[in-house]
Amino acid sequence: MTHDTSNKKILLSGIKSTGRPHIGNYFGAMKQYVDLQGNEYDSRICIVDFHSLTSIHDGEILSQYTLDLAIDFLAIGLDPKLVTIFKQSDVPELMELTWIFNCITTMPYLMRAHAFKDAEAKNKEINVGVFDYPMLMAADILIHNAEIVPVGKDQKQHVEFARDTAEKFNRIFCKTEGLSDEEAEKLNLFKLPEAYIVSDVETVPGIDGQKMSKSYNNHIPLFSEDADITRLVMSIVTDSGASLDANDPMAGIPANVFNIHKLFIGNSDLIAAGKTYLESEETLREFYKSTGGKYKPLKDALAADLIAFITPLRVRRAEIAKDTDAVRTMLAQNGAIIREKVHHLVADVRRKVGFVV
Amino acid sequence: MTHDTSNKKILLSGIKSTGRPHIGNYFGAMKQYVDLQGNEYDSRICIVDFHSLTSIHDGEILSQYTLDLAIDFLAIGLDPKLVTIFKQSDVPELMELTWIFNCITTMPYLMRAHAFKDAEAKNKEINVGVFDYPMLMAADILIHNAEIVPVGKDQKQHVEFARDTAEKFNRIFCKTEGLSDEEAEKLNLFKLPEAYIVSDVETVPGIDGQKMSKSYNNHIPLFSEDADITRLVMSIVTDSGASLDANDPMAGIPANVFNIHKLFIGNSDLIAAGKTYLESEETLREFYKSTGGKYKPLKDALAADLIAFITPLRVRRAEIAKDTDAVRTMLAQNGAIIREKVHHLVADVRRKVGFVV
Repeated sequence: MTHDTSNKKILLSGIKSTGRPHIGNYFGAMKQYVDLQGNEYDSRICIVDFHSLTSIHDGEILSQYTLDLAIDFLAIGLDPKLVTIFKQSDVPELMELTWIFNCITTMPYLMRAHAFKDAEAKNKEINVGVFDYPMLMAADILIHNAEIVPVGKDQKQHVEFARDTAEKFNRIFCKTEGLSDEEAEKLNLFKLPEAYIVSDVETVPGIDGQKMSKSYNNHIPLFSEDADITRLVMSIVTDSGASLDANDPMAGIPANVFNIHKLFIGNSDLIAAGKTYLESEETLREFYKSTGGKYKPLKDALAADLIAFITPLRVRRAEIAKDTDAVRTMLAQNGAIIREKVHHLVADVRRKVGFVV
Repeated sequence: MTHDTSNKKILLSGIKSTGRPHIGNYFGAMKQYVDLQGNEYDSRICIVDFHSLTSIHDGEILSQYTLDLAIDFLAIGLDPKLVTIFKQSDVPELMELTWIFNCITTMPYLMRAHAFKDAEAKNKEINVGVFDYPMLMAADILIHNAEIVPVGKDQKQHVEFARDTAEKFNRIFCKTEGLSDEEAEKLNLFKLPEAYIVSDVETVPGIDGQKMSKSYNNHIPLFSEDADITRLVMSIVTDSGASLDANDPMAGIPANVFNIHKLFIGNSDLIAAGKTYLESEETLREFYKSTGGKYKPLKDALAADLIAFITPLRVRRAEIAKDTDAVRTMLAQNGAIIREKVHHLVADVRRKVGFVV
């Protein structure tokens, strides 16, 4: 049963509003939303503030982060005419769906979730929201009947949980067991979503070579000032990672610098500005080898490229941030649009589970 | 901060719509709603169908049980002019509140809940809804800022969880730490609810002497037909419980029959009809001893009293059930009334946690 009138496949993704983004967030997720925007998908990008509440217990901060993330999305080039940017808390029906999914999900099943197992392994006293959020994420995906869910490799399990949950709900409440696929299709309320693994981006490394993460304090903020970029690039750890095996194409190359630089390979603006070493991984490697083992010119080049990339984003962001009311209005309007779009499905779900007398 | 304009204390209670009620449910909970109705409290009685979903996974059955319970409430004498009977799923904001409470509740805390520990002890694979329902119950109580929550002794923990959660929320989001009680009172969103323990009703025994429960199949349905009542009373187990100690006031009395009969002590209708042995526990004991150890006349008397009590309820119920649309309308209207009453508090909560940008 399709509730959306458009023929486009629905693409759904979400980002937590729990802090300012860094270039790891950008290259790992946000950039893909820009790359995927267009007429092929009905793209819906959700600021998952219900989810943010699992870690932020200060209303002013959470509210600020949420507004900031909406501004960030616009600043990186998401076009509100092509993509619906909305916030999770404007669709409270998600919470009903989460509860319904909780009631058909066993404790042992949910305890298999990575985040819970990690927390358990660390003997960390997590809150119930952290434990339950895979069900909220299933609701996020399924309430749209989204078919395309762009995720990093480490988030694939969430889409699997959503698929399992959709199957469970269809089987229990839509009574399709024993029917042909075609017959079942008509009765099933939920489509099975597909993870769209963004394959060409590996884990983005931080300035110490580990995965870039605020919790490791090894990140380069996405909208950094020039001086901060330079300072952070100069502090990249260079004494590790350089291979000594002459047959290794990376021999003599400071991997931590190179791996951040690699993010800009193919960036047409930078190449047009004369940075031809960004044409391919090979040209970048040649450039790195051309300095004869000196790191300073490489770091200078990386800092210059980061600045050239970030400056226009930062300028655009400052411009957008001048009119926060316009951003608030966009969020409110989009929230209403999404609520209207999911209304029929939620009403059907309520009927199926027996909430309508 | 009080959001209700009336000066009456708010009384809140709820019953799951997971089956037909028996006299144990009536004397253990439902009767108290009738006894407490009047002008003292703003009484709100909730059919907790969100909660019912933890055990009923058939929409038609759940919906039927919910409607049936609304009819039951009217049949036992709840006056819609004095009590607001509504269903939980008509107040979806409860699910938002449940999520918010989940995010400030740790896993170990919630694992201390009786229902979870019982399930764990039985090695039962419970669903996440069963695990999480104390938080839903906290939301149920706190969304009304209810001050009086009539519960049986075994449910006292739920009110304690609600109190703890209210305190936690106030401390974290209303920032009242270090303030005087008076100052804090103004800022706190949630009042601390009090359990109102219904003390004069002990556990209602079933026909086998164990606690009356559908799961033990030892129950007498509340709206039974006469023939069924007689059959069930005749099958009460009489060979156990009779004390042999002559100093025991219960010596020679078949406890399983007596303990059910005891529920009718003080019932003015029955006493007026000549059942003077129901005037006090002592008169009932004398009556039991007067048969010289014969059980049959006692069972006959109990069956007659049950029939005299149940018949008018059953007749009234059949009358009300003729117009289910009127019951549906009452539920819909009351749902809207309750939603309107809780609206301001929910809006304040959303602002405090940061869902408003």
